[in-house]
Amino acid sequence: MNTDKIRIIKIVQGMMVLMFALATFTVFSTSVLAQSRDPLPSWNEGMAKSRIMEFVEGVAQEDSPNFVPISERIAVFDNDGTLWPEQPLVQVLSMLAKLEALATVDPSLRERQPFKAALEQDSSYFTKEGIKAVIDVVVTTMANMTQEEFEADAQTFIETAIYPRLNQPISNLAYKPMVELLNYLRANGFQTWICSGGGIDFIRLVSEQLYGVPPQQVIGSTLKKEYREENGKNFIWRRAEIDRINDKEGKPVGIDLYIGKRPIFAMGNVRSGGDIAMLSYSQAQAKPSLQLIINHDDSKREFAYQEPDNASLNAALKNGWTVVSIKNDWKTVFYFKYLK
Amino acid sequence: MNTDKIRIIKIVQGMMVLMFALATFTVFSTSVLAQSRDPLPSWNEGMAKSRIMEFVEGVAQEDSPNFVPISERIAVFDNDGTLWPEQPLVQVLSMLAKLEALATVDPSLRERQPFKAALEQDSSYFTKEGIKAVIDVVVTTMANMTQEEFEADAQTFIETAIYPRLNQPISNLAYKPMVELLNYLRANGFQTWICSGGGIDFIRLVSEQLYGVPPQQVIGSTLKKEYREENGKNFIWRRAEIDRINDKEGKPVGIDLYIGKRPIFAMGNVRSGGDIAMLSYSQAQAKPSLQLIINHDDSKREFAYQEPDNASLNAALKNGWTVVSIKNDWKTVFYFKYLK
Repeated sequence: MNTDKIRIIKIVQGMMVLMFALATFTVFSTSVLAQSRDPLPSWNEGMAKSRIMEFVEGVAQEDSPNFVPISERIAVFDNDGTLWPEQPLVQVLSMLAKLEALATVDPSLRERQPFKAALEQDSSYFTKEGIKAVIDVVVTTMANMTQEEFEADAQTFIETAIYPRLNQPISNLAYKPMVELLNYLRANGFQTWICSGGGIDFIRLVSEQLYGVPPQQVIGSTLKKEYREENGKNFIWRRAEIDRINDKEGKPVGIDLYIGKRPIFAMGNVRSGGDIAMLSYSQAQAKPSLQLIINHDDSKREFAYQEPDNASLNAALKNGWTVVSIKNDWKTVFYFKYLK
Repeated sequence: MNTDKIRIIKIVQGMMVLMFALATFTVFSTSVLAQSRDPLPSWNEGMAKSRIMEFVEGVAQEDSPNFVPISERIAVFDNDGTLWPEQPLVQVLSMLAKLEALATVDPSLRERQPFKAALEQDSSYFTKEGIKAVIDVVVTTMANMTQEEFEADAQTFIETAIYPRLNQPISNLAYKPMVELLNYLRANGFQTWICSGGGIDFIRLVSEQLYGVPPQQVIGSTLKKEYREENGKNFIWRRAEIDRINDKEGKPVGIDLYIGKRPIFAMGNVRSGGDIAMLSYSQAQAKPSLQLIINHDDSKREFAYQEPDNASLNAALKNGWTVVSIKNDWKTVFYFKYLK
């Protein structure tokens, strides 16, 4: 072999070593970068953030004692008060808007109960009359129409309504720390679901845009529906009858109906104890799991309110659920600047 | 610059050209390979196969006039007779097995109707008495127990039962051409769903293993359920009451309930006209869509049967749905070798 050939071989070998080193370095530096980038920048350091990150890292690492296969990484979230504000409820606003439109066509609605009370925003009437009056308003504003008609109405509301007190469009209402959490879970193989007491069809119209949750991963309350064929067209008809209320004990039932397995991550908020059953259902299984309750304790940046009976925080204390304080755990609440 | 340096530069330049050429060649040959590999090897060439492939390619190509965004690529499949055999129905076998077990504990069941008829496999009794008798058997074998108890029972059946006539375990019953089709659709960004008249909880136990469809993408008939807490445990209780029958006009309602949008691909089979509404619902939308009906016309490799009124084939003819002949369109039916 002559010196030229030997030199070329050495150069080639040297280049290969260099290329290998470069490749290794690239992989290494990317991984360092990924690790050092905070997946939850809107969360303050503290117990809530560390519990979430420890749980997610444990579940996702194959050599961890807490490893859970991807098919079992199901996370469920309440919507109102957990992913966006609930004082007042967005869907109540949408029903009032629809009721106003109906009353313009048929003014007698303004004199008939429970519509009179609803239009005058007399909540004491509903407190006195109970769920029956609420359901009357629900079916009058959301039923006796095709699914497509309902969606068109709701879409118009979503695109034009301004949320009171915060003075923001509906598309701006998502809690920033929760969107970060949803993205972080999905990046670690979780399937993210909404499990709400609200109507399923309304939430499906905002879930993808606001939270990255596709419509088919939304569970909510439902009307009875039927399939109809008329004049060569077919459609789903929304009957004036409640099918299922997806709140309290209805939430685990909804999860069984739509997912068929117990979630390993469940998150709700204080207000009515509506998420206690869902969190208990998630916790009572063999796999590692995490349950969280948001405490609305920030009157400056959001709305401060508590449950009259403290049921959710008591359940959290008893069961070891993680309480998330908006005031202390969230660096930022919304995407928009606060009005002060 | 000395000759050595010039020579090294030239060698490096040469190597870079070579590496680029190699990389290009690799990409090119992989793409040629991908195109030349038949995604549906168990399908004979013919109209059914070409319509499927033209549709899927059109939907998935961004520059095609038929392009549909990934979030809208929803495909729904009937289960019995579409993804596996239905002569006899697997779930009927599972109910009979459970009824036998119950009759061993309580022999009086053998004398009481409709259980006597069921245990003696006297189908004429059910033809005469109708749906009420069938529902009696359904709730007796599948209700009044926790969700976990039902799943344990069904799992044992699935692992041990032998399917008559074909003499095969349940895990061997998937139609090979349909598994290829499901994989092909998923590889092109489709989300694949099962929409069956059968009970949702039974199908969920086989859907992932047999078809690669996760439990949360199964729609089926449901019992009424409730959440209960007892002795520090919580569970879903299966009540002895039908919630929803996911057949005929119930199928579009189930799709609306679980998915919230019209599928662009729907496939069922002849037997009872059970899939006609689902296919009509899929077809009546603005986006490009494809509907298919399997015709069970192969008495040698599967079971030959028709609808008494020919409803499904008539609907296919009228609406331009693609009829899949098992005899002509499928090169192979099952994964196992035929007995004859």
